Amino acid sequence: MATVRLLSDEEASAEALAVFDDIRAVRGTDYVNNFWRALAHDPALLKATWERLKVVMAPGALDPLVKEMLYIAVSASNGCEYCAHSHTASARAKGMTPEMYGELLAVLGMANQTNALASALQVPVDEAFQA
Amino acid sequence: MATVRLLSDEEASAEALAVFDDIRAVRGTDYVNNFWRALAHDPALLKATWERLKVVMAPGALDPLVKEMLYIAVSASNGCEYCAHSHTASARAKGMTPEMYGELLAVLGMANQTNALASALQVPVDEAFQA
Amino acid sequence: MATVRLLSDEEASAEALAVFDDIRAVRGTDYVNNFWRALAHDPALLKATWERLKVVMAPGALDPLVKEMLYIAVSASNGCEYCAHSHTASARAKGMTPEMYGELLAVLGMANQTNALASALQVPVDEAFQA
Amino acid sequence: MATVRLLSDEEASAEALAVFDDIRAVRGTDYVNNFWRALAHDPALLKATWERLKVVMAPGALDPLVKEMLYIAVSASNGCEYCAHSHTASARAKGMTPEMYGELLAVLGMANQTNALASALQVPVDEAFQA
Amino acid sequence: MATVRLLSDEEASAEALAVFDDIRAVRGTDYVNNFWRALAHDPALLKATWERLKVVMAPGALDPLVKEMLYIAVSASNGCEYCAHSHTASARAKGMTPEMYGELLAVLGMANQTNALASALQVPVDEAFQA
Amino acid sequence: MATVRLLSDEEASAEALAVFDDIRAVRGTDYVNNFWRALAHDPALLKATWERLKVVMAPGALDPLVKEMLYIAVSASNGCEYCAHSHTASARAKGMTPEMYGELLAVLGMANQTNALASALQVPVDEAFQA
Repeated sequence: MATVRLLSDEEASAEALAVFDDIRAVRGTDYVNNFWRALAHDPALLKATWERLKVVMAPGALDPLVKEMLYIAVSASNGCEYCAHSHTASARAKGMTPEMYGELLAVLGMANQTNALASALQVPVDEAFQA
Repeated sequence: MATVRLLSDEEASAEALAVFDDIRAVRGTDYVNNFWRALAHDPALLKATWERLKVVMAPGALDPLVKEMLYIAVSASNGCEYCAHSHTASARAKGMTPEMYGELLAVLGMANQTNALASALQVPVDEAFQA
Repeated sequence: MATVRLLSDEEASAEALAVFDDIRAVRGTDYVNNFWRALAHDPALLKATWERLKVVMAPGALDPLVKEMLYIAVSASNGCEYCAHSHTASARAKGMTPEMYGELLAVLGMANQTNALASALQVPVDEAFQA
Repeated sequence: MATVRLLSDEEASAEALAVFDDIRAVRGTDYVNNFWRALAHDPALLKATWERLKVVMAPGALDPLVKEMLYIAVSASNGCEYCAHSHTASARAKGMTPEMYGELLAVLGMANQTNALASALQVPVDEAFQA
Repeated sequence: MATVRLLSDEEASAEALAVFDDIRAVRGTDYVNNFWRALAHDPALLKATWERLKVVMAPGALDPLVKEMLYIAVSASNGCEYCAHSHTASARAKGMTPEMYGELLAVLGMANQTNALASALQVPVDEAFQA
Repeated sequence: MATVRLLSDEEASAEALAVFDDIRAVRGTDYVNNFWRALAHDPALLKATWERLKVVMAPGALDPLVKEMLYIAVSASNGCEYCAHSHTASARAKGMTPEMYGELLAVLGMANQTNALASALQVPVDEAFQA
């Protein structure tokens, strides 16, 4: 359960529905996932979030699949259940193989391990790393 | 300052020094960064961490640069100062351009934003995302 | 499920029951929520937590509703499911409107986004911000 | 030090400088703080972040001071040094008194305490809290 | 549900099954918990994680029960549901009494509270604490 | 620098000074560390925090040194610089040897690693772990 009811197409406002339609058009599927249905209570927030997401996740200097894997890395570090599921599904849809997922997990595990060590030890930043 | 003194080559044990030498050989540089000098108080932990890192960060199904960017993503989400600096420097050494870094930052910002929204709203996971 | 059984009134010790009764009296409801029933295994911890909560959340320089919204902000950033649900319910009971909740979510999203950017970039603190 | 150099007005691109100018106009001060100077390496990210921040932090259903205090709450929970400093300074500029700050800190401490207890105990969400 | 299917003994590869067998032998039980069944999709990651865990959690300068309690502390701070459950169960199996658990919870709550205060206030480290 | 000035004995209120004196008496040292000097702006918060800390960290079912190590574990996971330093110093003062610290670090690293894996994989809790 969410802290708000998930809005169906019938319950969504015209402004929210327009965002749902754009999500469908951009993704080439009729399915609008729960995250957007929860945000639909505040159409301005829904629209701002979706519009920015479209720009950020578009192909550019980084591949869209790499961007999805970065999203998984953040979500796992934040312990966000919904985000881990939705972005793992997205990464698979964009071509993440089991081998790639296995290496992603290995890096996540390693990074969280060495982060904890560096934070416990409060290692000072090397001058060599300065911009 | 760290919670322990950073060990110089002279102060490190033979077992720790052997790890320093392997770091130098693998990276092709004489420089051993502070993280390893802090871990050197416990040579077994130093060795286990380095041996695993070598395996995890090696080329595989994912490119080493992608792995470094995943490391930055985790480090930023954890707020780890040392890790943000050291892995940003590593990613640059492996070819991260300013354009790639800009897009990485944009994804990090977006991911932490939608993670917070999903956590606040406690959005239930869609059945469509189930493995 | 919790890591401990939730204690009913019949199972709670006399000291725990006295806290339950105070919760009922202060809140003007018979309902004692699960958090307190889980803590009741350790009556001293239960009592210390409740006594402090009463003081902290009371009206003062800040409005009780503002305090509940701050609680939601912390809970979302920590990814705490129970806390997100319970404090969103409390905030509504204290008068949080959908418009206020929408703006709260927008600030949470923005704050987590810029926190991630500042952590990734390790921006040094401006002298102008020094106390 | 940051992972990038902080750009002066002279070094910033025309697009970045336009954002700096808008920051100055909106805030009624000549001072542009480090966060924006670090983001200026990527003018598109700089502009998107600032444009969204302006909307989110504007007066609405919530008071701008309440929004700044929510920002402090998120920043402390994330352990973001820069963010804690910059938003505490902003909150003071918007009227946060020492008494309000003291109560804000008390809520932050309490919320992080009970979040940790709820996460350790994995307390199940009460049906009464369902939307 | 997990983001991957949990592998049964029949579905696991020979390399993964060898790890399952070692888990059974070391723990003296036939039960292999879900975490390992999820990791079994990547036998190398499964093996590396288990081999390191065996070393780290073995008796040494710290008692195995103390190590399990440290694990609970990390898991609660990270908000990891699975980890909170599995390590609380392990700690109980190693002799954690209700009184010990109550004190552990009290320390966790206190530590997260003062961490939040120190992060909000950005208290500078005392010279007296320097290594 | 902190977000507030650290109060000297001369600047502290009578109520804050009484807490400073109790800290000195309980710890058997004249030194009052920065955390308390920052909290002293709000004597009620200072007093409540110290009074609770005294109770929580006192000997009980858990050894005071174990409690300090739990504090370090939380602090490292939260990335709290001040907390990592102050509680590592305290743990040493209470008898933590380099061997114990090394094992503590190894557990912290391992726990943060497997937490990240469990969060990324969203492993469902085994029925065997239910209370």
